[in-house]
Formats: sequence, C-alpha cells, structure tokens
Amino acid sequence: MKKRWFPKVDNAPEPLSFTVERQVRFEEVDAIGIVWHGRYPSYFEDARTALSAQYGLGYMDFHAKGVIAPIKQMHIDYRLPLRFEDSFTIEGRWHWSEAARLNFEFILRNQQQQIVTTGYSVQMMLDHDSNILVVPPTFYQQFLQRWKEGKL
Amino acid sequence: MKKRWFPKVDNAPEPLSFTVERQVRFEEVDAIGIVWHGRYPSYFEDARTALSAQYGLGYMDFHAKGVIAPIKQMHIDYRLPLRFEDSFTIEGRWHWSEAARLNFEFILRNQQQQIVTTGYSVQMMLDHDSNILVVPPTFYQQFLQRWKEGKL
Amino acid sequence: MKKRWFPKVDNAPEPLSFTVERQVRFEEVDAIGIVWHGRYPSYFEDARTALSAQYGLGYMDFHAKGVIAPIKQMHIDYRLPLRFEDSFTIEGRWHWSEAARLNFEFILRNQQQQIVTTGYSVQMMLDHDSNILVVPPTFYQQFLQRWKEGKL
Amino acid sequence: MKKRWFPKVDNAPEPLSFTVERQVRFEEVDAIGIVWHGRYPSYFEDARTALSAQYGLGYMDFHAKGVIAPIKQMHIDYRLPLRFEDSFTIEGRWHWSEAARLNFEFILRNQQQQIVTTGYSVQMMLDHDSNILVVPPTFYQQFLQRWKEGKL
Repeated sequence: MKKRWFPKVDNAPEPLSFTVERQVRFEEVDAIGIVWHGRYPSYFEDARTALSAQYGLGYMDFHAKGVIAPIKQMHIDYRLPLRFEDSFTIEGRWHWSEAARLNFEFILRNQQQQIVTTGYSVQMMLDHDSNILVVPPTFYQQFLQRWKEGKL
Repeated sequence: MKKRWFPKVDNAPEPLSFTVERQVRFEEVDAIGIVWHGRYPSYFEDARTALSAQYGLGYMDFHAKGVIAPIKQMHIDYRLPLRFEDSFTIEGRWHWSEAARLNFEFILRNQQQQIVTTGYSVQMMLDHDSNILVVPPTFYQQFLQRWKEGKL
Repeated sequence: MKKRWFPKVDNAPEPLSFTVERQVRFEEVDAIGIVWHGRYPSYFEDARTALSAQYGLGYMDFHAKGVIAPIKQMHIDYRLPLRFEDSFTIEGRWHWSEAARLNFEFILRNQQQQIVTTGYSVQMMLDHDSNILVVPPTFYQQFLQRWKEGKL
Repeated sequence: MKKRWFPKVDNAPEPLSFTVERQVRFEEVDAIGIVWHGRYPSYFEDARTALSAQYGLGYMDFHAKGVIAPIKQMHIDYRLPLRFEDSFTIEGRWHWSEAARLNFEFILRNQQQQIVTTGYSVQMMLDHDSNILVVPPTFYQQFLQRWKEGKL
C-alpha cells in the first residue's frame, strides 16, 4: 500500500503532474560507481521547476509577486541506484493544499520503468521581509481556484 | 516534545556523538542569498564521515572489509537559513540499532547556538555483489558489543 | 584575430564539432544572480561527453579498452554572464593531434548567439596502471586514420 | 623554469600569500577514484577567499563598497591526482597589478609536499550597474599604496 506523504484533504482535486528526463552525468557518480545520494535534490528540483513553470508559478513568477518559497522539508527514499549515462525520468506531482505551502512528490524511474527513487519537498511562502505567509497570496488563491474548478 | 526519527529500542545504549565545524562557502549560496537546500547532504556527510572515523568505521574501513553502506533514506528539516560566511556546527548522532543498518541523526547550529537544520540518514549494508546483509558482519557486531558494554 | 589554443599541425583535418543545449539551473546561480564560475567545467563536460560519444570514444568506450583519459589542463575565459533559466548552447570542437592527447575547445553562446564563454581542455591517456601513454593505443590510431581520410 | 602567469611589472612588490588546508570529501571523488577536475575552482576559491579576507578585501567588503569582482579568466594545470580523504594545502598568491583587476595564483600541495595542481584566476571590477572599472576604486588604490609601502 502506498505511503501517504501529505495530510489527506477531503475533496481535494487530483495532483498536477509533469515529467522531465535527465541523464546521469559523470560528475554525479561517486567512487562506488553510483549517483552520490546528495545529487537527488537537484533531480527533484528539475521536476519541481518544470511543473511550476507549466502553471506560471516558477521561481521568477513568485519573485515578481514579492513572494519567495524556500524549501522547509525534504525527504528521499533511495530504492535502486543510478549509474553513469543512465537515462531516467523524474515525475513531479503537485499535491493540493489550501495552506500557504507547496507540497511536491517526486518519482524517479529508470529506462526499465522501475521506480528508483521517491521523495517529497515542502515549501512555505515568505514575503520579502521573510515573514511567513499564513494565508496564500491572492495570485496563488486564484490558481487554487482554477485548479479546483478543473480550469488549469 | 522531540520527534523520534528511529524506532525505539529497549535498553539501547546512548547515541554516539561527534560535532564538526564548517563555514558557508560562496558557491553554496543561492540567488536569494541563503544556502541552497540541496547542499545539506554534504553538511550531513561531513559529520557522518567524522563520527564514523572516530570508531574506525569510515567508508574506507567498510570497503576494506568488503562491505558498502549506501544511503537508503534521507530526511531534512530546514528551520533557519544559513548565509555566506556563516560559521556553524554539525552534530552527528549515531543511534543504536542491532540490524544491519546505520542510523544517523544530524543537528546544525549557528553561532548563536540556534538549531538551524535537523535531519537523519539511514544506510543499509551490502556485500560487494550488492546483496543486502540481513545480519551485520562480524566486525560490526564486535563494534556493537563494545558500544553496549561502554568500551568504545 | 582568433586566439589559437593548441599547437598548429600542418595538414591537420578540420576539427570535429558537436553542440549541446542546456538551461541554467537555480542551483548554478550565485548570490550575484549569475552562474558561479566554477560550474563551467560541467558545461564543458556536457559537450565533450556528447562529442566523444558521437565517435564511439566516450568515457566508457575508453574504459572498455583499458585506457583512461584524465583532464591535464583546463582554461576558461568568461566574457558575458549567464543567468537563471537562460538557455545556451555549448559547442565542443575536437582538434586534431597525433599525440596521445585529446584537445577540446568549447564555445558557449546565449540565445542572442553571443559568445558568452570560451575555453579548452587537454586530456592525456593512461593505462590502468596509471602509466602515461606516449603513443596512442591502436583503437585511437584507427580513429585518427578515419578522421584524416574523411571517413568518420 | 617557472611559467609566468601574469605580465611582469617593474618594481612590483612581492605577492601576498596565504595557505588554507582542506581534505577531499567523498562527494568530490569520481568513478575513477580521483577528485573530479571540476571541483578545483572550489579549492582555488577557498584560498582566494581567505587571502582576500586577510586584507579586509573579501567579497562582502567589495560589496559594501558597491563593487563586484567577477572571475574573468581561470586556468588549471592538473599534475597529480587527489584521492578520498587526502589532506592538502592550497596556497593563494595575490600578484601585484595597478590595473582594476585581481590576479591570483594557486598552488596545491599534498601531504608529501608535492605540487599536485597549479593555476590562476583573473578578476575584473564592476560597479553595481555592471560597468567595468578602468581605474581601481579609491579603497583599492589605498590598499595598493599600503602594499607598495610594505605597510600591510
């Protein structure tokens, strides 16, 4: 049975999903010949960046609205290794939350479609004076509204 | 109340602890002026490497015994940011487990002794044919024995 | 007038060329908002890896023949900055040499086709006992032969 | 005979020098078991940062004066490899120049005091509108004056 990363929300719309491809670089591999575990936040970020950009909510979009969204929590489960030149996909899933936080789940798959890594990140939202936003900013509430209505 | 990262073990001896110092490099800081979240696995590894070496159980020691111990799980909670040139400490705590796994907890503190980041890593043990060890190897069992008897 | 990176060789065939694309990641940008200068060896390596692979002479191909080709020299001239999300191309040019060394030139261009960075790398060849090869190995001499005859 | 990285300046005072220590991290080592060539800009920066700070001319000091000093050129000669856990020193030498540029030379030595890597970096100075400074700013001219008079 699948582990649930985030609190269950009643009547939540389906997660938004986007998948990017990447290939293991030589510099990412360690002395054992597998990707060093500390490279995976970069892999996650590729999917998060691409998925956010799909909805006009990338880093620069937030920045233009005076909001930054630093990572508050990250979790990684390493199941299978990746090796030099392996091609793999990173699926990002944006999970519904009405709070001023961004909940992303990540699933990495190798070319045999095996799940090699899973994980998640949680971001909070801050204004430019580093105050935590308790209520999401208007532009984000409008995004949630469109998401709920299936109009994204 | 403190969160418990690892399963409770009855009559477990106290964790082993070691603290290293580090200073934020320019390359570690992002466009917002804080350490990019993906650098922290490197910070954790500094403490894990130093703590393991204290007990003759570093990466090279395992390797010499024909055992590798890849990271299976990692978790990071970001509480406060670190900035360029900030000095900070990384405390590693090795938690008792009788299984063939290595459970480390990490606590980063800034110069004001505030906890800035916490997290943990879990390693499993493999032989050189990548078979998972269910029972810890002899050299490791002897280490556990000395740990339990307070003879480290 | 163009600077010459490598010694002139009479009757040398034209360089081999290959261009890859890349986009600046958030983690690559520093506190000033431009790509940190130390990321460019990674950019160069992307082009070198792709260009080598075109001719069946990638890292793994060398490895299979018992030869490694570590970087002996690297040079980078930074002309214009790159910023977060900038798309750019990296052209690798493999310059002819009859010696047991690999001479690559790199040219990075932004979306306006301005040259933003140039540089080069020099690799020597070693056998698996780390002895420097004075004469290129047979498989490499055959590659040079095909290159010279225009049969690549 | 020693290679000269920078143009000879008549009556130039001796270079300023500072040496830092570092130990090779696991993440810095590649699949061949040696430090990946692209990590050395980080090693150079450690020495440059420490040497600059000695004279109150670190990154933050420049920033406070409204000047940034991006890297314009970098060169690295790899002579001997470094391996996991190797301790080594990085000597930075600041070479005299009356122009608005910073010329640093780097010498890495292993524990046997062998020179393993050499190189240099050149920085230009820009104001905060990204205009290149042709003449060094006043605070830097005063530093040059004290350097020349042996009063640092």
